[in-house]
Amino acid sequence: MKRIGVLISGRGSNLQALIDAQRAGELGGGEIVIVVSNVETAPGIERARQAGIPAVFRDHRGRKREEYDAEIVSLLKARDVGVVCLAGFMRLLSPVFVSAFPNRILNVHPALLPAFAGLDAQQQAFAHGVKVSGATVHIVDENLDSGTIVAQEAVPVFDTDDVETLTQRILASEHRIYPKAVRILLSDRYRIEGRRFIIGDGAA
Amino acid sequence: MKRIGVLISGRGSNLQALIDAQRAGELGGGEIVIVVSNVETAPGIERARQAGIPAVFRDHRGRKREEYDAEIVSLLKARDVGVVCLAGFMRLLSPVFVSAFPNRILNVHPALLPAFAGLDAQQQAFAHGVKVSGATVHIVDENLDSGTIVAQEAVPVFDTDDVETLTQRILASEHRIYPKAVRILLSDRYRIEGRRFIIGDGAA
Repeated sequence: MKRIGVLISGRGSNLQALIDAQRAGELGGGEIVIVVSNVETAPGIERARQAGIPAVFRDHRGRKREEYDAEIVSLLKARDVGVVCLAGFMRLLSPVFVSAFPNRILNVHPALLPAFAGLDAQQQAFAHGVKVSGATVHIVDENLDSGTIVAQEAVPVFDTDDVETLTQRILASEHRIYPKAVRILLSDRYRIEGRRFIIGDGAA
Repeated sequence: MKRIGVLISGRGSNLQALIDAQRAGELGGGEIVIVVSNVETAPGIERARQAGIPAVFRDHRGRKREEYDAEIVSLLKARDVGVVCLAGFMRLLSPVFVSAFPNRILNVHPALLPAFAGLDAQQQAFAHGVKVSGATVHIVDENLDSGTIVAQEAVPVFDTDDVETLTQRILASEHRIYPKAVRILLSDRYRIEGRRFIIGDGAA
């Protein structure tokens, strides 16, 4: 089950980081076999195609969430996808979706969760005046940015930063930890105790 | 106004870090002139006396918060204290206290605020399964752990940690950033914009 589906809504820079990691042999044997976008004009679609990965657009507008999610699940299952990576996919997943891939859906968030969940996390952190922020890869559940944390990395916030420079620093961190988290998940050498994600014998 | 009062309730390990920094000339010219404990048996009282610093016990039990706070403010003002450092002082300050030292009261918290405010922050972080936690020095206002952040430092949370090993790692971080934050505050080379504490020309 090392076949990966990636869901995007935008430029797909984290998709690119996963593609690059796969090419470099640093995705733990994972293979990205399909990219799905809910936005027709998402530049990430073109990134996928340039990498030789099938990429499809499925419009969510005017459709019930459960119905839409069931269609995406079918698309992924038809490709034998075992792990789903959200990469800037701007929708909450319904229980239909989450239960189809239990503990096998990852998301990356541009803050050190549980701080600054939700939209515009970098702006939230900047406005709050934190001196440290970062990035989080977590398992996706039905709630917003609340699932088990797989990997985090801290980055400094400098007094000379603006939101854009902070966003870029966090993005670089996202690109480092997302492939790492996928590798850990694919290794299957971990256990989950309560909310703690604990890596087994040398799987990191 | 480089005379410092320190408020404690317990062992006073952060008090010791401030004493050590002062001795090493790393407290920005700050001088700890009084230590106040609201707990008679606090080991920090003895630490202070061993360092030649007057240390007094004032019991808060059975007294109105505002009345108690006014007495502590009087004690501090009588010593010409300009900056107040909370070091494990387990009480919320009333507006009476806060308004007597506007933006001149610091506290250290064993988490990366705004994550894990309140009691048992290390246990909260551990149970939440974060991979990064840390310490925060912030300006004290009337609300719990909510004031402007002056300094933060991240520490890793390892899979092999328990709450005690994590607590010790965070404590070492507290001891590093608390003297640094005092130094910055005493330098007066900073400005506060919204919630952001921004250090001026080379004051760090």
